[in-house]
Amino acid sequence: MKPVKVGLCGLGTVGSGTFNVLQRNLNEISARASTPIELSHIGARRDNPACDTTNYQLSRDIFAVVDDPEVDIVVELIGGTTVAKELVEKAIANKKHVVTANKALIAEFGNELFAKAQEQGVCIAYEAAVAGGIPIIKAMREGLAANHIEWLAGIINGTGNFILTEMRDKGRDFADVLKEAQELGYAEADPTFDVEGIDAAHKLVILASLAFAMPLQYDKVFCEGISTVQPVDVKYAEELGYRIKHLGIARRRDEGIELRVHPTLIPHKRLIANVDGVMNSVLVQGEAVGPTLYYGAGAGAEPTASAVIADIVDVARAISSNAATVPALGFAPEYLQDHVILPIDAVETAYYLRMSALDKPGVMNQITQILSNAGASIEALIQKERESESQDHVDVALLTNSVLEADMKSAIEQIEALDSISGQVSRIRMEALG
Amino acid sequence: MKPVKVGLCGLGTVGSGTFNVLQRNLNEISARASTPIELSHIGARRDNPACDTTNYQLSRDIFAVVDDPEVDIVVELIGGTTVAKELVEKAIANKKHVVTANKALIAEFGNELFAKAQEQGVCIAYEAAVAGGIPIIKAMREGLAANHIEWLAGIINGTGNFILTEMRDKGRDFADVLKEAQELGYAEADPTFDVEGIDAAHKLVILASLAFAMPLQYDKVFCEGISTVQPVDVKYAEELGYRIKHLGIARRRDEGIELRVHPTLIPHKRLIANVDGVMNSVLVQGEAVGPTLYYGAGAGAEPTASAVIADIVDVARAISSNAATVPALGFAPEYLQDHVILPIDAVETAYYLRMSALDKPGVMNQITQILSNAGASIEALIQKERESESQDHVDVALLTNSVLEADMKSAIEQIEALDSISGQVSRIRMEALG
Repeated sequence: MKPVKVGLCGLGTVGSGTFNVLQRNLNEISARASTPIELSHIGARRDNPACDTTNYQLSRDIFAVVDDPEVDIVVELIGGTTVAKELVEKAIANKKHVVTANKALIAEFGNELFAKAQEQGVCIAYEAAVAGGIPIIKAMREGLAANHIEWLAGIINGTGNFILTEMRDKGRDFADVLKEAQELGYAEADPTFDVEGIDAAHKLVILASLAFAMPLQYDKVFCEGISTVQPVDVKYAEELGYRIKHLGIARRRDEGIELRVHPTLIPHKRLIANVDGVMNSVLVQGEAVGPTLYYGAGAGAEPTASAVIADIVDVARAISSNAATVPALGFAPEYLQDHVILPIDAVETAYYLRMSALDKPGVMNQITQILSNAGASIEALIQKERESESQDHVDVALLTNSVLEADMKSAIEQIEALDSISGQVSRIRMEALG
Repeated sequence: MKPVKVGLCGLGTVGSGTFNVLQRNLNEISARASTPIELSHIGARRDNPACDTTNYQLSRDIFAVVDDPEVDIVVELIGGTTVAKELVEKAIANKKHVVTANKALIAEFGNELFAKAQEQGVCIAYEAAVAGGIPIIKAMREGLAANHIEWLAGIINGTGNFILTEMRDKGRDFADVLKEAQELGYAEADPTFDVEGIDAAHKLVILASLAFAMPLQYDKVFCEGISTVQPVDVKYAEELGYRIKHLGIARRRDEGIELRVHPTLIPHKRLIANVDGVMNSVLVQGEAVGPTLYYGAGAGAEPTASAVIADIVDVARAISSNAATVPALGFAPEYLQDHVILPIDAVETAYYLRMSALDKPGVMNQITQILSNAGASIEALIQKERESESQDHVDVALLTNSVLEADMKSAIEQIEALDSISGQVSRIRMEALG
């Protein structure tokens, strides 16, 4: 049987992982594909000491891989959205299938790339773009095909989850843990992508398109990072029976789709609340199957390689049996349609609020009155005693029922304007996920 | 486009769920399959009030579905291994693809059925046979295709997990909870299949074949039920930081494959230890991806229908694009090979032991001496004070390191033979799963 030939572009972290796993398990992988797979051409600007490429055709110009007439599948692992985009476009133009781990590329340019691939009769597979080694794209696109998906919520950025886990377990503050994460190599020198939720937003928009049969709409995601989460909020959340997780949430409502990334209080009894450290997890609610959850490593060389190679196997199987692959977003393209994405002001959630209130009669009444006018009732409340006579303000932490974001914003402004309130009100959204 | 025609055999719990989800979501499901799907013939001995079959062709003789020349896919949801086997064989002989939720049929007769299907160029899909709505077959067979699988451990019987969860949460005893489970419809009138682990063994053998590229070997599974688990063991396990779960475990060792179902102590911090009630979960360790976990409803009409329909979509997509489906056990059949299945005596695990020991000097020394001779050191121990002067025996619960089952059996016999020990020693295996 003629082998399916793979061209690997990029020998960074994921590229080297892919190279090494392919080398190590090639027989088993070919047996799973029911067709021989061959790594036939590598494109890398520089060597990676983790990979012995002696016996492989290696080009310093990665575009040589895309132009190699022998190559059937181009694996794009260089990252970014400039050269990577050009590379993928060239591969498609050359009628080669593409496998990529590039979440930014798919989230921001997926619509046009998928259309081009369809025109050329090739596919773009991107299992590794979301939640690393967890086969979540396959689960959503094929495993849950019977279901009308109602909502999904994911811990889809390992760096953020590591930071929040450390803050909870050790009472440390954000900046301190971030520094350690950078030293450990979990976070980049510029951590914006991870801690401000941009990386999670890229992944969320992909999952939402798979769930709700709509084109990718990255610019519509509401995004709030974890840099404002205080250790004291983590502590009060625990006392109230909750954990703070940085979640990507997509939900179908009659009025439109919610698409949002933000710190979220979730009941500590939920399985996903117990996903700690750098691990990722996605919880998907289908109307037939109910809740299903997927858990695993969201990053790292070999976990991500696991997803890249699963795609290579799928595409190789399709090539060898002359079959079509599953459509990029899980539905026949003509079935996809834009949905209204709800602005965050139109989203309803429950809230955790913390404020520093003057410890005197009547203050609590002012607060509850403002909340009540906004339609928010108080479901739980912690008010600590003053620690000393000299302290005139005390922390008040409370949970509300579900209320419109716009109404809560206005209520918070009114509370902050009270003379009896010092500083700003901390506000974290809540989800029951049940 | 010519629709793919589905013949549904059986309108029991899963059959009615499949009928209703297909009815409700047919457009979305067809869009996912990129081909129209039509429920064209139903075979059921009697009506199910949950299904309005007015507009469908309905036969009282289910074999009429298999003989219907219009039907492309036969969905076998009658259960059992007699008529169901005949039905599936007939479908294959008639060159129809088969989708089934029948774990007993696959576990016990899968090898011969898969071979027959291959001869006829059709497939047998069975996602619903393991862990209900969780797409675990697809994850193992495709999503983790890059990995050499090291081990897997699953809570794959919801009834057993419900009973153990209730025993822990409420301190109830086995018989009492079983009775409630029967009243709730979670357990059958004859609960043997669930509580003695036969159902879990069926599922485990399927997962092990997918993991280790070997034919199904149901007769080789070691199987121990939960009926001997005492509330006191559940309590001591908690005190020691563990939960008792009924696990199916398959592990690759140099000497062979472990294949076993039994109550197991696992650290309460593990995610899978927190899977409660009737829910199922499978933890899979691949050498590239590391641990991944899958969670969802393991039974019930619509969760199981979700998996049945995912298979229908896969098969319909293959039919419409004239493609081969993924091989039944995930590997090209010629790659499958028998492995040695280790007898339980050759398995090494850590142990929890509980015994009633005479409360006098020297007794503990006798016990530790016997264990030490078996190669078992004590990792943790609970010994309670006597509750009254009249009580001369006290409970001793302890955890050992990893030791050969045969050696532990012999040590337990020696301990039970001591004059200072009253009654039998409770013994539960432990797994770190980390």
